[in-house]
Amino acid sequence: MEVESRNQEEVGFFVLGCLWVKRFPKKFLSEMVEIAKQAKKIAKDDPRKVIHSLKVGLALNLVSLFYYIQPLYRNFGDYATWAVITVVVVFEFTVGATLGKGINRGLATLAAGALGLGAYHLTTITGKPGEPILIGIFVFLQAAASTFIRFFPRVKARYDYGMLIFILTFCLVSISGFRTNDLLDLALKRLYTVLIGASTSVIVSIFVCPVWAGGDLHKLVALNLERLGKFLEGFADEILNSTEAKQSENDVQFRGGMNGILDSKNREEILANFARWEPGHGQFMYRHPWKQYLKIGNLTRQCARRVEALNCYLNPKTLASKEINGMIQEAFSNMSSESGKALKELALAIKTMTMPSSPNPHVTNLQMASRNLKSFLKSDFCEDVNFLKIMPVAAVSSLLIETVNCVENIADAVNELASLANFKGSNSNGAGQNSSKTQCRIFEQPPEDETPHVISINEPTSANEESQSSVHTSGQKLTL
Amino acid sequence: MEVESRNQEEVGFFVLGCLWVKRFPKKFLSEMVEIAKQAKKIAKDDPRKVIHSLKVGLALNLVSLFYYIQPLYRNFGDYATWAVITVVVVFEFTVGATLGKGINRGLATLAAGALGLGAYHLTTITGKPGEPILIGIFVFLQAAASTFIRFFPRVKARYDYGMLIFILTFCLVSISGFRTNDLLDLALKRLYTVLIGASTSVIVSIFVCPVWAGGDLHKLVALNLERLGKFLEGFADEILNSTEAKQSENDVQFRGGMNGILDSKNREEILANFARWEPGHGQFMYRHPWKQYLKIGNLTRQCARRVEALNCYLNPKTLASKEINGMIQEAFSNMSSESGKALKELALAIKTMTMPSSPNPHVTNLQMASRNLKSFLKSDFCEDVNFLKIMPVAAVSSLLIETVNCVENIADAVNELASLANFKGSNSNGAGQNSSKTQCRIFEQPPEDETPHVISINEPTSANEESQSSVHTSGQKLTL
Repeated sequence: MEVESRNQEEVGFFVLGCLWVKRFPKKFLSEMVEIAKQAKKIAKDDPRKVIHSLKVGLALNLVSLFYYIQPLYRNFGDYATWAVITVVVVFEFTVGATLGKGINRGLATLAAGALGLGAYHLTTITGKPGEPILIGIFVFLQAAASTFIRFFPRVKARYDYGMLIFILTFCLVSISGFRTNDLLDLALKRLYTVLIGASTSVIVSIFVCPVWAGGDLHKLVALNLERLGKFLEGFADEILNSTEAKQSENDVQFRGGMNGILDSKNREEILANFARWEPGHGQFMYRHPWKQYLKIGNLTRQCARRVEALNCYLNPKTLASKEINGMIQEAFSNMSSESGKALKELALAIKTMTMPSSPNPHVTNLQMASRNLKSFLKSDFCEDVNFLKIMPVAAVSSLLIETVNCVENIADAVNELASLANFKGSNSNGAGQNSSKTQCRIFEQPPEDETPHVISINEPTSANEESQSSVHTSGQKLTL
Repeated sequence: MEVESRNQEEVGFFVLGCLWVKRFPKKFLSEMVEIAKQAKKIAKDDPRKVIHSLKVGLALNLVSLFYYIQPLYRNFGDYATWAVITVVVVFEFTVGATLGKGINRGLATLAAGALGLGAYHLTTITGKPGEPILIGIFVFLQAAASTFIRFFPRVKARYDYGMLIFILTFCLVSISGFRTNDLLDLALKRLYTVLIGASTSVIVSIFVCPVWAGGDLHKLVALNLERLGKFLEGFADEILNSTEAKQSENDVQFRGGMNGILDSKNREEILANFARWEPGHGQFMYRHPWKQYLKIGNLTRQCARRVEALNCYLNPKTLASKEINGMIQEAFSNMSSESGKALKELALAIKTMTMPSSPNPHVTNLQMASRNLKSFLKSDFCEDVNFLKIMPVAAVSSLLIETVNCVENIADAVNELASLANFKGSNSNGAGQNSSKTQCRIFEQPPEDETPHVISINEPTSANEESQSSVHTSGQKLTL
């Protein structure tokens, strides 16, 4: 009995094993196909990623010549390693990132090498036995201080990599002193090889199909504005004639696009940080106002949040119910469509780097539409209607008016960018900048009210003040 | 005349120079004082940053013993450099980050070293003259392929550093083969020194005042919930009795706190990524459900966006105007206060890792308050009132009801976390998980309506679906 059951067990294991072996190639193959598909998608979405990979290979081959060619190898010997390491760690996707890392690495190696040399020479005063203790103290103090400095926000943003290399080089140079006779030679060779690696990376990065962080930031900000404009234009149709089936299909598209816009803050900040390292290129000067793009990006996201909220209320049954007549529907549609057009025009102005028309005709239309809506709402439209039924209309009105305010803020920020960056057709009277300071009365108070509410659209003073910027009223907060 | 003017010029320069020299120490000193103040603030805000800096100094001194102690130096020679480099680049603030980088670096060095050895031995078949060409081709192909793989999102998230070290080690080993006789020795020494450096970092990181990314994530999520709860409680007071002066002061505080909550997404994701590398510690097991924290964080931000919008409408003049009677004000205040209490209780449950009471009494109160508000709004409250005056009330009602929905979603997510992570007092009937699937009728339709609107609060299936999760209605979108 026992033998039989053991036999059966063995057969069972054998069958399972066979099945696994049989299935393995199939599973492996299907996984490979999946990976290949993903690779193809990445390459298709951004072919520059393929070119970047080839560029890294090229730069590495260039620096490895220091190993292969005898006269070069004679000069640096195994220190040539440092050139290879430098290329691997410094070569980044965009020119700005590569330049930033290269400059950080070069300067940090220079400074820390010099300091390390000095520190080592100080320790030699004590003689051999005390040397390691003194070196240890120096290494400890320098590493602790530099690591702490890395926590400073300003250092973290731009010089974090430099500080890392500073710690690294100081430790290597001062510790090596204990085992090397010619420490100056070591420090210099390390500096030269790092410089060779860094400049190889920078040269390949700039001269072989460069990817500019600044250009990417420019395109991203314009694209987000354009997408938001398209959504708003889409809403205009949806308000007038939508079916539920069509809407749920639109909804999925909307979610994807909206998340793309709302989640772009981090990417924009990284790109702006890199762009500041880049030299002038194409249409961009060296000190192009990259910060202004962050401001426009923040305002775009603020507007996107309103549009997201608006989307929740765009329900065919709500807006098509018998309580809401055609006139208000048309007013909503009109405001949404004009907002969309205004944003798309601003996106185009950024894209083509031309001065946007000021005052923007769509913004003027928007102000008119806003006024029309409000005068309609002042009429006796509300009487004898169930409050719960009216709430969506109130919410949509309120959100649309807020969206219009956001659009005006964006228009001001784009105008400011246009004058800061001298866009084509820019007139020197600074219309763009002035317009941002004027009070724009888009909401007049009903005459029976005692305290006049004037909504003024003030320019936010800094990109960080994103949330503060929205809408302020003179003397009191927005009552809408 | 000319001599005189030149004299005057020289005197001018001299005076300017003197002034500069005189002012320099003062300016330098004031800058130093500023930096010292900033350093003091950073150290006071998080003393662990100071301890981390000292830990880096300690770890570096530990690995530099390989230089000072003769028997250790005899084994590794100048390869000891790699141990120092490894400590500098691997040692990060949290245990998770250090472990992740250490494991990535160790495994990548092992794999790339073996592959580099193999590649070099392949090239020796062709003989010396062809060797560099073949090595060059291998380096190019490997670097290009690995760089491209770094663009895969899954690789980028967890293994980016490993891929970098893979490229680096492969190049170093295969290129060094051209100039070294004992390549195996080189590869092994590199591996050993990297392992020594990585394990020194990990040991110091874990055993000297460890900073756990998981613990930080846990605290951050609970803190954000608590802050949001406090804001909502604050609103409750503000609705009933606020003055303009007090409000604008509150507003600055509100902005700061709200931006902190809204901008925490990136930080939470980074911490969750690190936490996954960490071993079990304190109250957290090895496979603690860190992803669930991201979900709670996303829902918190979603709720924060509603609260931010709500803040815009909390204007003493609006809500205290004669059209809005005390009863609605009280209803608003009640809802806001109960929402705040519910959130604070949930934050406490996370903090103390105890099962939250289910059903949450505050959530039950909220449902009641919601119902009360709606029945009041159904009354003839709206007749003969100017629509523009009613709009803020409509908006606040609508936003409060949405906030209540968000609070319920958060309660469900926290319940789920409690049962996934076996919080204290957790009962095994899975009440938390079940409750998330039940339909919660918080909004009954006025009887005269034909189509019944039932708002069901569905659990979002993934943390990414943040925006999709909010509120769905069966058959149609939210009409409020």
